[in-house]
Amino acid sequence: MSGPLSVYQALKAGAADSWDGYVAHPFVRQLASGALPEACFRHYLGQDYLFLLHYSRAWALAVVKSQEIADLRQAAATVDLLLNHELALHVKYCEGWGLSEADLVRLPEADANRLYTRFVMDAGLSGDLLDLLVALIPCSLGYAEIGRRLADDPATRLDGNPYRDWIELYAGREFQEGAALCSQQLERVAEARGLSGNFVANPRWPHLLKLFETACRLEIGFWDMGLSAT
Amino acid sequence: MSGPLSVYQALKAGAADSWDGYVAHPFVRQLASGALPEACFRHYLGQDYLFLLHYSRAWALAVVKSQEIADLRQAAATVDLLLNHELALHVKYCEGWGLSEADLVRLPEADANRLYTRFVMDAGLSGDLLDLLVALIPCSLGYAEIGRRLADDPATRLDGNPYRDWIELYAGREFQEGAALCSQQLERVAEARGLSGNFVANPRWPHLLKLFETACRLEIGFWDMGLSAT
Amino acid sequence: MSGPLSVYQALKAGAADSWDGYVAHPFVRQLASGALPEACFRHYLGQDYLFLLHYSRAWALAVVKSQEIADLRQAAATVDLLLNHELALHVKYCEGWGLSEADLVRLPEADANRLYTRFVMDAGLSGDLLDLLVALIPCSLGYAEIGRRLADDPATRLDGNPYRDWIELYAGREFQEGAALCSQQLERVAEARGLSGNFVANPRWPHLLKLFETACRLEIGFWDMGLSAT
Amino acid sequence: MSGPLSVYQALKAGAADSWDGYVAHPFVRQLASGALPEACFRHYLGQDYLFLLHYSRAWALAVVKSQEIADLRQAAATVDLLLNHELALHVKYCEGWGLSEADLVRLPEADANRLYTRFVMDAGLSGDLLDLLVALIPCSLGYAEIGRRLADDPATRLDGNPYRDWIELYAGREFQEGAALCSQQLERVAEARGLSGNFVANPRWPHLLKLFETACRLEIGFWDMGLSAT
Repeated sequence: MSGPLSVYQALKAGAADSWDGYVAHPFVRQLASGALPEACFRHYLGQDYLFLLHYSRAWALAVVKSQEIADLRQAAATVDLLLNHELALHVKYCEGWGLSEADLVRLPEADANRLYTRFVMDAGLSGDLLDLLVALIPCSLGYAEIGRRLADDPATRLDGNPYRDWIELYAGREFQEGAALCSQQLERVAEARGLSGNFVANPRWPHLLKLFETACRLEIGFWDMGLSAT
Repeated sequence: MSGPLSVYQALKAGAADSWDGYVAHPFVRQLASGALPEACFRHYLGQDYLFLLHYSRAWALAVVKSQEIADLRQAAATVDLLLNHELALHVKYCEGWGLSEADLVRLPEADANRLYTRFVMDAGLSGDLLDLLVALIPCSLGYAEIGRRLADDPATRLDGNPYRDWIELYAGREFQEGAALCSQQLERVAEARGLSGNFVANPRWPHLLKLFETACRLEIGFWDMGLSAT
Repeated sequence: MSGPLSVYQALKAGAADSWDGYVAHPFVRQLASGALPEACFRHYLGQDYLFLLHYSRAWALAVVKSQEIADLRQAAATVDLLLNHELALHVKYCEGWGLSEADLVRLPEADANRLYTRFVMDAGLSGDLLDLLVALIPCSLGYAEIGRRLADDPATRLDGNPYRDWIELYAGREFQEGAALCSQQLERVAEARGLSGNFVANPRWPHLLKLFETACRLEIGFWDMGLSAT
Repeated sequence: MSGPLSVYQALKAGAADSWDGYVAHPFVRQLASGALPEACFRHYLGQDYLFLLHYSRAWALAVVKSQEIADLRQAAATVDLLLNHELALHVKYCEGWGLSEADLVRLPEADANRLYTRFVMDAGLSGDLLDLLVALIPCSLGYAEIGRRLADDPATRLDGNPYRDWIELYAGREFQEGAALCSQQLERVAEARGLSGNFVANPRWPHLLKLFETACRLEIGFWDMGLSAT
């Protein structure tokens, strides 16, 4: 790649081990091959429903913390996408796996799940919109990257793969476009908060990188939780 | 009226002077007759744009503070309605009055405006979802009530009234339905937070009533600000 | 005991398994006998330093959320006690175990630690002062109860016990008095937020009990983390 | 002055009109000469008591938002100073003017007062610690500057001035030292958040300057409120 790195690229480069451990996790590889045990996927799905509720709250905190109209609108659109569209898809999808929303609501929240979303909320409460976005994007942008990778990888099996819908959701245009807007927002907010030019030299960088790296590690913990259900 | 009062009715009854001073303010009566000076309306419109931005942030805080899925969804739908639909209408409407969004963004926020929205935000930060909703509803439900009153009042002049669109917006079905959902949410959250039965005897009641009464007073201050533009 | 239960007693009774698992954890019993491996204690001590920082932030959130002067003062006194007195004691105590504050600050925060404090913060952000206090007290009141139990238990070995100072700190008058004030605050705030009389019938009770029970479970996770250091 | 400006100096220079209007307000000049009507001072005193409560909450939010131990400690010390020391002095001082704490608590909060503190809280909620500190310092540092100016000004009358205690409180060593620490914190946090070197070119600067300027204007509104009591 030529030219300077974007903030997102620099975060991924700075937390490469955690990032790779997340987007190329065995859970993801087993989704791609279709070999993932159904019990693992169902455990993941149920927890992901609970995750989505708190993750939406964290995006709503991004609305609260927006000082520019473009950020207000972008964050509000994300909250709406998550709570009023994706959640409905998620519920419908879970029904296909025999999990009703009434079942989902009653599930106990796993610690690996609670840890992740509450960490993101606190990144927002203690910091500014940039701190919050950096903790939010490993999920938003990471799932888009996972979807794209799986769709592009000739080793991915789609025919007869019980997880084909999942792959196609995150590789699909709507999710990819949402991620692209989110990625642009990150760069715009970073610049507005003074992180332009040689931003890795900015005194905020180590903290931002740690937020990103921690969120990636907590994504790994989330996949691990899924695999542990067997 | 027979039967016990709803929380909303009891709040209006308990803060009757402020409520009446708000919904029957001279600004409103002059809107109804068409006699309101254009300078007042334009000043109001511009500040209302800025209000809408911060009021949306306060509804986003209601998403952050929701502990039940119904509340998450309802609050998120309100944020989306405000920021992604009403704001667009507002901008388009302002254009009709010769105010571009670029103009609106540059307006200095009036103190009466800032006071109101920051008070609501802090009601939410310091309290729970019920405290926040009680500070939010004088605007959401009050504008619906003003719209309905004006539409029902034979004294209201619609023909040739330059403010006819404004009246019809708030009297219209979409806004009225949004207000009805918001009203149901208030009663549901009040009950979930322990305010059922003889709720005016609940130790929280005086504080809730004060939040409601203060928000009504700040609405009066907002209309006063509009009138002061002549 | 005759007479109605206090809120604190009812919470302990409602979450008896988690409460007992916390206050009578093997880590605590090994502290009492002196048999706890030093590596476990040192690991615990270092994480407890990091815990104290975030736990103080959560008590500061209680200041932010106080609507009564008595609560403002009590919460502020607790923040001051934690950050300006206990932290200094903790640092001095750690030095006696060969851990300088510079070492402590550099420690990576364990997930069991992060999970606990961020959960408490979010209980406060999403709820009111009562929700927050209920999530805070398992630590404040639980450590007081552990200290008192150990001091009262003839099986506790003080002579030659390397952890004697720890036991005496939490059994000591200053900590016990702080806990008593905190306990009174809980009952006062519960009443002010409408939880009096038959409070277990209050619609808020299940959520409050779940907050308390979760915090107790996370205390167990904290002790487990300590023991895992061997 | 030689050498680069501190952040504090640059803020004062950038908002010179508002700053001067605040620190050299007629209310202050009449305090210095002793000519201030007692009714004005008493009105100010009562509102200042209510201000102190919410201003302390805003400093507690600074504890919540601290990411460095030095900031945690400094903010917590300020909360303690305000709520557990200054508030007591304030109450005692008010008693000397015939206002008991029971009277003070019952006072209705003036809008000019509510506007100011809620604006500061929201600056913190929507921003980071630096945004919050910039909104907090016009009060902390401004009162110190007013105290020092009055003490240094030969035109200030101390003998027989009924407001002598007030002047000596803010000119006194304890308050001046607190302000010095607060000033150091501002510079340290600004640097940690990337505002070093040519900081007025930082994209954050216009927003920070606006926060500072607004807080100064709201201080002017507070003095105006005092004078309006005649």
